[in-house]
Amino acid sequence: MANVDEQPPYRNPSVSTDQRVDDLLDRMTLSEKVGQLVGTWAGELNSTKDLDDVEREIVEHGVGAVASFGWAGARDRRVDDVVETVNRLQEVALSETRLGIPLLFNVDAVHGHAYVTEGTAFPNGLGMAATWDEDMAEAGAAVTAREVRASGAHQNYSPTCDVARDPRWGRAFETFGESPYLCGKFAAAKVRGYQGDGIEEDTSVIATAKHFPAYSEPVRGEDASPVEISEYLQRNVFAPSFVDALEADVESVMPCYNAIGGEPAHGSRRLLTEYLRSDLGFEGTVVSDWHGVEMLHEDHQVTADHRGSVQLTREAGLDIASVDAINHAQHLQSLVEDGELAESVVDESVRRVLEQKFRLGLFEDPFVDSETAPEVVGNDEHRDQALEAARESMTLLSNDGALPLDADTDVLVAGPNADDPLHQLGGWSIPDTEGADIVTIREGIESLAAGDVTYERGSGIAEPDDIEAAAEAAADADVAVVAVGENWYIHEFGQNATSGIDNEQFPNRTQLELPRAQRDLLEAIHETGTPIVGVLVTGRPLAVNWLAEHAAGLLMAYYPGTMGGQAVAETLYGENDPSGRLPISIPRSTGNLPTRFNYLRHPMPIGGEEHLDSYDPLFAFGHGESYAEFEYGEVAVSETTLGPEESTTITVPVENTSDRPGTAVVQAYVSPDVSSRVRPVRELRGFDRLTLAGGESGTLTIELPAASLGLAQQDGSRVVEAGTYTIEIADQQATVTVETN
Amino acid sequence: MANVDEQPPYRNPSVSTDQRVDDLLDRMTLSEKVGQLVGTWAGELNSTKDLDDVEREIVEHGVGAVASFGWAGARDRRVDDVVETVNRLQEVALSETRLGIPLLFNVDAVHGHAYVTEGTAFPNGLGMAATWDEDMAEAGAAVTAREVRASGAHQNYSPTCDVARDPRWGRAFETFGESPYLCGKFAAAKVRGYQGDGIEEDTSVIATAKHFPAYSEPVRGEDASPVEISEYLQRNVFAPSFVDALEADVESVMPCYNAIGGEPAHGSRRLLTEYLRSDLGFEGTVVSDWHGVEMLHEDHQVTADHRGSVQLTREAGLDIASVDAINHAQHLQSLVEDGELAESVVDESVRRVLEQKFRLGLFEDPFVDSETAPEVVGNDEHRDQALEAARESMTLLSNDGALPLDADTDVLVAGPNADDPLHQLGGWSIPDTEGADIVTIREGIESLAAGDVTYERGSGIAEPDDIEAAAEAAADADVAVVAVGENWYIHEFGQNATSGIDNEQFPNRTQLELPRAQRDLLEAIHETGTPIVGVLVTGRPLAVNWLAEHAAGLLMAYYPGTMGGQAVAETLYGENDPSGRLPISIPRSTGNLPTRFNYLRHPMPIGGEEHLDSYDPLFAFGHGESYAEFEYGEVAVSETTLGPEESTTITVPVENTSDRPGTAVVQAYVSPDVSSRVRPVRELRGFDRLTLAGGESGTLTIELPAASLGLAQQDGSRVVEAGTYTIEIADQQATVTVETN
Repeated sequence: MANVDEQPPYRNPSVSTDQRVDDLLDRMTLSEKVGQLVGTWAGELNSTKDLDDVEREIVEHGVGAVASFGWAGARDRRVDDVVETVNRLQEVALSETRLGIPLLFNVDAVHGHAYVTEGTAFPNGLGMAATWDEDMAEAGAAVTAREVRASGAHQNYSPTCDVARDPRWGRAFETFGESPYLCGKFAAAKVRGYQGDGIEEDTSVIATAKHFPAYSEPVRGEDASPVEISEYLQRNVFAPSFVDALEADVESVMPCYNAIGGEPAHGSRRLLTEYLRSDLGFEGTVVSDWHGVEMLHEDHQVTADHRGSVQLTREAGLDIASVDAINHAQHLQSLVEDGELAESVVDESVRRVLEQKFRLGLFEDPFVDSETAPEVVGNDEHRDQALEAARESMTLLSNDGALPLDADTDVLVAGPNADDPLHQLGGWSIPDTEGADIVTIREGIESLAAGDVTYERGSGIAEPDDIEAAAEAAADADVAVVAVGENWYIHEFGQNATSGIDNEQFPNRTQLELPRAQRDLLEAIHETGTPIVGVLVTGRPLAVNWLAEHAAGLLMAYYPGTMGGQAVAETLYGENDPSGRLPISIPRSTGNLPTRFNYLRHPMPIGGEEHLDSYDPLFAFGHGESYAEFEYGEVAVSETTLGPEESTTITVPVENTSDRPGTAVVQAYVSPDVSSRVRPVRELRGFDRLTLAGGESGTLTIELPAASLGLAQQDGSRVVEAGTYTIEIADQQATVTVETN
Repeated sequence: MANVDEQPPYRNPSVSTDQRVDDLLDRMTLSEKVGQLVGTWAGELNSTKDLDDVEREIVEHGVGAVASFGWAGARDRRVDDVVETVNRLQEVALSETRLGIPLLFNVDAVHGHAYVTEGTAFPNGLGMAATWDEDMAEAGAAVTAREVRASGAHQNYSPTCDVARDPRWGRAFETFGESPYLCGKFAAAKVRGYQGDGIEEDTSVIATAKHFPAYSEPVRGEDASPVEISEYLQRNVFAPSFVDALEADVESVMPCYNAIGGEPAHGSRRLLTEYLRSDLGFEGTVVSDWHGVEMLHEDHQVTADHRGSVQLTREAGLDIASVDAINHAQHLQSLVEDGELAESVVDESVRRVLEQKFRLGLFEDPFVDSETAPEVVGNDEHRDQALEAARESMTLLSNDGALPLDADTDVLVAGPNADDPLHQLGGWSIPDTEGADIVTIREGIESLAAGDVTYERGSGIAEPDDIEAAAEAAADADVAVVAVGENWYIHEFGQNATSGIDNEQFPNRTQLELPRAQRDLLEAIHETGTPIVGVLVTGRPLAVNWLAEHAAGLLMAYYPGTMGGQAVAETLYGENDPSGRLPISIPRSTGNLPTRFNYLRHPMPIGGEEHLDSYDPLFAFGHGESYAEFEYGEVAVSETTLGPEESTTITVPVENTSDRPGTAVVQAYVSPDVSSRVRPVRELRGFDRLTLAGGESGTLTIELPAASLGLAQQDGSRVVEAGTYTIEIADQQATVTVETN
């Protein structure tokens, strides 16, 4: 460590960041530089590394980033352990390397700090999007940032900007649904929440927009298979949410694993430099997804070996190879030494990495407080925030009047997801909930019920349990609340399934119908004549045709997080009005995928009579019922003619005509009458939500800038075309005309 | 009509075609020119036109092309009527227009002259491709050309160059399957068959490569929905079969209905001129698909009205608006008159149209012989050719030893497709088989059986018939031959279905499982204990998991055409060795679509254990069993190192070790070890078939030019990359190394 008496400029916080970076970069050897461009891990990944391994990598190779917590195989899960490790490794970096450059820690806290046992888990992506409340997403992300930072990490691999395109994909649950507009709004909100007023704040973390530029439409829904979509879709469907995240000043971007146009994104200069930096103006760090570099030779086979992959990714514009560690660093060093890669490429990346470390204040304040961390992570205020989000996410799909339940109803609680904290968190959460304080649906109901509550699971996810006992208990109850759906998964589902139907394993990629065990449970209960209230705890929309037809009420709960059971129960008993709206269409079958509201216009060569509807969902995008009733007045548009830089305001008077509070959510769908290229039949361009007491009136307001109607051209430019645009809102139509030049 | 004494040069056959075109063009008014660029119809389309209507269009507007037969709603179906109309209309064009330019007649004779009652129907696309015999396809196309030309048409809207990408698409049956290589070989063979040594021959017709450049991967499998694929797929998967057709000098190209990159192909200058003409060097005519022009404003909404669509398609490079008729011509004329379109655009198209009419000899020989036509259409020689093709297409999917049947077996013949000539032809055939001489499966079996043959249909396509009677008859038989599958359809399937499962209507877009009625029939027969031999008469691969598991033998018959029942029966009785091989994978479920052998390499981020196989078909591409048995010797590669212009020869010794004749079919799959862009795990690059008597030996030979390993680059150029390529053939592997520069 440098002697304080002769403190170099880079150690002086009163010197500008640029100067500190320059000074430090000047002092670094090539070996020290490449160390800053790789990360390592502590825990179980493709091999297991313990702290000694990591310390050796820091001391001998100057590795600059570490993931020791905040992911599935991480070494530490309890907050006390997390903090101890962080401080220990940080101490090594500071005291046992020549320049004492602090480490950057990174985590996967995608829906809360959910890989730490005590952390607060929010509803997963689809659930958060179902709130149609960006402020809620921002507040949740701010909570997450506080928890992440208090426990010692500085970069969060979130938000997910991917637009859901196929529910077979094992990561659909992480997305904000199928609307590029909604995805963009929520991605930007989470960036704001994570980064606050900047990463200079000690409650902020680096946000990471992922997975650039298009992960979410892999062939067959198979994770990381190619995304061979047109440039037109790329620019108009997949890009907007990244653009929104970039406009919110996201500090980091992660490429997707997939090949696009035959080019794996990690090795594509076209995507990571020409498109991301030149076209979109990004100036932060590009961090690889885990193993994203090695996949170039191991799987994509676009390079012959690891060295080739390092070269290709560096030429493409990668800054940090997240867990590629020492091997990557050594190849990188030799590429520069052998003259196969310009040192300036390395310098440019190191500059970006150091700049973030300075701005994070790591040189001044590298350690975390072991006493503060447990007070921040999972505190009551944070849990309340998670409860609020879960409440707003609750989406009532159907209700024949059975809901809300009277408090004194006798209830059977059944199903694999009624009392399983793990399933309730869903993926990107601790894989073992021991020690975690999670409120299940059963617990939530028990806390609110005045009538009898019986619990019989009846079925596991794919294995029948005691169905008969559940049916018997149902016969004795007034209503059966049956929580069905999926369990914890990330990326994929497991190999023990064929691609046929009625597989033994569920969930799996090819089946969106509930597995037989759960269907049998539902049918057995239905046969007793006791009404079923279905609760879907699931990462993705399932083709629950039978349930939709036979349930007295059906509530989509998504993966609702730490406080999810409480929110479900409050909704069932009417203490919370279900104000969630579907951010994704629920299909009728896998055969009709993709089922999305914003499909592109197209002909039907032999006529509509022969043609199954293009959009025939079981439940449509935007759908969700309230316990209250609303009457909408006439839609008004402030400006019916506007220039491409101008904006119009759409207002809708609304009255809650019921005697209970409720939330009205309106959505504005817009489509041009004529366009130079084929447009979606409708695209979401705005929304508003308003909570009103019984009998109360108000006005919903949506700002519609003409710019939001723009169409990306082949060259990447975005053009607002002149013409008439039809707006669909609250079952009414209006038009605006855009005039150019 | 011009006076013979002052015969102008364009009427003089000894003048060169170019000069004749120049001369005629010089004489034409704008109105006469635009007339040559549109076609009309006689029969029932969006409106019904009778001959008077057509005559008026010819006389008053000089319309240049007519479709009066050879499609579903055509006026004429019987060959005598067909010829009478053609000659009558031709006479009008010759005698009642100023310049007497003869008409061009066009037909949809995609698998034989199947829209004429007496015509010869060959197996539909997939069935023809299942022969893996290009000569067979060429011979069949030559038969079709003779029948088409003899009955008065000059242009055939065939071959289909589309590569099957989704069996939900209602036109998958028209394709040559999922291998771009196989599609290209068969498309080229059919072009050769149709055009012979040139359209100057009176047994040749203009072939039409369709549907350019990519129709076959519409979203949701929905006919004509957008094909939003990457340029990379466009160039490497969809283009090759068009390139092969172009190299076979195809005279005409038809654009697809779909939008690609947001641009409807019919209105895309990028696709029809820059790509097709400039990049690929095409010099023939571009003819619109029916209603392809109007769809631009009516469906795609990229133009405001018909006039706008005419302008866009003309600027794009369209030559003939097939059935857009007078409206199109009038808009076109006014666009030129108003200075919105250069007359040179019109002239260029007219030049192409006239050039073909001259080369077809229409100015010299415009009429057809009403006595010859019935002797040519559907004659015995042609039927024999259709039988040969059907025989070679028969694909034995599984056989537990039940096949071949002994002649004296007592057989129940059952199922909706055992005795239905219409279903056996499939789409793009007469919608009513009255008067047609088609051999059904039942008839074929009855003609060959020595044992008892009973027939009980048991089930319609989707409606149960007398299942009980069929089961009772099965109990009395030694074997039940049950022909299941699909009926006649084109483009789509019908509206009376939802996108759920177990729909009332079958076939439909979203369900690849057999409908309940057919499943019930199969299960009822299975329960009797009598072995089932399943015969699949179907346009596309169906997910027949149950049948595959329970049938004693399973034969894929596709839509086998006029003589299909004979070919099926000969195969069941062992008089024909089943030498067909699947040109398309049979999937296990819609949830696993796309199921294709040549999927692109990709990573599995959390490992193969979690990951359902990327390719898990019920029956694989290339699969098909023989009654004979073959032993393969060691694969030899003549040149293991070759330059990009060189070629290597792969040989495989083979012995028929059985005591019966049979056909060995080998397939060579090739993949590079490393490639600049992600390649398929394997791609078909060659095949050979060899029929051997029992005990006979021979050698299978495949020529592998390095050029066939090329990879299309972003700029459209095709590059053969240096490196090692692995060849999989006959369960063996070999390698070749390509060396460049």
